[in-house]
Amino acid sequence: MHELRKDPLLGRWVIVLKEESLGPESYSIGEENPSPDEGPCPLCEGNEKNTPHEITAIREKGTEPDTPHWFTRVIPNFHPILQIEGELNRRGVGMYDAMDGIGANEIVIESPEHGKPPADMGLAQMHRVVSTYKARIFDLQKDPRFRYVIVFKNYGYSAGALFSHPHSQVVATPIIPKRVKEELDGAKLYYNYKDRCIFCDMMREELKTAERVVMENRSFIAFSPYAPRFPFELWIMPKKHSCAFEDISDEEMEDLAMMFMTILLKLRKLLNDPPYNYVLHTAPNRVPRRNHWHTLGEDFHWHIEIMPRLVRTAGFEWGSGFYILPTSPEDGAKYLREV
Amino acid sequence: MHELRKDPLLGRWVIVLKEESLGPESYSIGEENPSPDEGPCPLCEGNEKNTPHEITAIREKGTEPDTPHWFTRVIPNFHPILQIEGELNRRGVGMYDAMDGIGANEIVIESPEHGKPPADMGLAQMHRVVSTYKARIFDLQKDPRFRYVIVFKNYGYSAGALFSHPHSQVVATPIIPKRVKEELDGAKLYYNYKDRCIFCDMMREELKTAERVVMENRSFIAFSPYAPRFPFELWIMPKKHSCAFEDISDEEMEDLAMMFMTILLKLRKLLNDPPYNYVLHTAPNRVPRRNHWHTLGEDFHWHIEIMPRLVRTAGFEWGSGFYILPTSPEDGAKYLREV
Repeated sequence: MHELRKDPLLGRWVIVLKEESLGPESYSIGEENPSPDEGPCPLCEGNEKNTPHEITAIREKGTEPDTPHWFTRVIPNFHPILQIEGELNRRGVGMYDAMDGIGANEIVIESPEHGKPPADMGLAQMHRVVSTYKARIFDLQKDPRFRYVIVFKNYGYSAGALFSHPHSQVVATPIIPKRVKEELDGAKLYYNYKDRCIFCDMMREELKTAERVVMENRSFIAFSPYAPRFPFELWIMPKKHSCAFEDISDEEMEDLAMMFMTILLKLRKLLNDPPYNYVLHTAPNRVPRRNHWHTLGEDFHWHIEIMPRLVRTAGFEWGSGFYILPTSPEDGAKYLREV
Repeated sequence: MHELRKDPLLGRWVIVLKEESLGPESYSIGEENPSPDEGPCPLCEGNEKNTPHEITAIREKGTEPDTPHWFTRVIPNFHPILQIEGELNRRGVGMYDAMDGIGANEIVIESPEHGKPPADMGLAQMHRVVSTYKARIFDLQKDPRFRYVIVFKNYGYSAGALFSHPHSQVVATPIIPKRVKEELDGAKLYYNYKDRCIFCDMMREELKTAERVVMENRSFIAFSPYAPRFPFELWIMPKKHSCAFEDISDEEMEDLAMMFMTILLKLRKLLNDPPYNYVLHTAPNRVPRRNHWHTLGEDFHWHIEIMPRLVRTAGFEWGSGFYILPTSPEDGAKYLREV
């Protein structure tokens, strides 16, 4: 069983992979861009028997689980960082705090085709991918042990991708992650002061100046935030206030798929197929014990953060929490609008 | 003038390099481990005229600034991220907050010899390097515009090194960085609850279990923290409680140089010369307006965090603030003790 440990100073949790603890020789430093998936790709259509049993899939009518003819397919991670069975077993360890590594860690296979990155998969397929995210969040939120479900994609080796086959990941955690808590706290602080959602205010500000807006459609805007971490970082945000991604309407889902695909295409074209991460930022799970739900619904606003990984984070960033932007958000947005 | 901008949600500041804003073609993605310093190395002895004027140096008696025969040399960064001249000019920009990019950004050249990484430079030279850090902190703290001085080293391309010549950096910031504030807040919370320094408690706990201690000498211990961000992460901490690095005694300075060198040698041997960052974590500048100095002195404890960069941080870490440790701190410390 992996172990969750709390940093007593910062309140941050880490996951210690106790069951498969690596020796120093296992780290391939210097070997940049290795091919992590030589041999037959286990995520490709036809290789369903080489993966753990599928959790769900969008597939052709009449086909069986773990067989071909699917559009998107969700499986447990081959080496999950958190394990689905068990209880948390919270405990003190000397002055420190730990619990068992309980949670979920799933792989969303975004396409049956190996060589179809999101930018190329087409609108219908992109729609299926975001629908799959929604379905997994709905399902995982039912488990009362979980407090948060995070959906993210690592694209390209240096952004942490596990496979070159198009995939994203879902992780359900037994605690609200520190980074999410900070965001909720920041939003709440603003709401308490202004009685307005900070994200709605940001959207109004961005639409007014238009300097950092990359595109806009019926339901969404995509813009470079005023003070992002990374050059060319983009946020996609629903125009209608909503704290939870899983409450998205069918109309919004269509508009999201269209905008998401266009943005990923623009990034690829402008930046020569860069590595990137995207992360869905949504409200914590609706569990009975969270009694401030009502307020939270008004002060938080779901969105997607897309971070091209063009620069190296170094001692200054790690030590200070400052980030350095070699390209201004205004310039970045302009390049992306025009491409 | 570069611009400091505040993220309204998280309170984090970023530095927008407005003066030299890069176009999309300037990011060399995929080009891993390029040689950033082809041609004659400007940091080598003999090339002093190719650098900005030196700020200070430890040099042979009777030699002039910007000439050879030095041991360590401090110069302004060739492309400083913060500029020394000017006022902060704090301002609102719509709903956002900005100020001018005022601060200091210096390069500490750690050796006149190109091929002498810290692990090889010898005890006397390592002593000079840490003395140079102390001198720069003392000097920069005199400027009332600055709230914090951060000293860090990026070693190896993927850890963000600017040059292959041994060097570290000093940055003075006009605000206390968010990451530092979080640490101060965490330490204060613990102190308020326990009336004890959390770092002193951690040290006692580590010495008691001994599982994560790598080495110990008269004045310092080096250990892997219970819940670090990176595998093989190490903290070096003075045994005697002290909040500010610049108050280090001569005896401690000797012990620090010895331990620091040994630890860097161990890391190199065990992990095949890995890229790493280290960051000095010390108390904020002593400025009159910080009226809680007295408390801060009791609850904070300076230390050095050394982070080998063996793993890629991806969407999950960026989105959640969780970190994944493929090697447990106990195993990491054992390998490092034994090497």
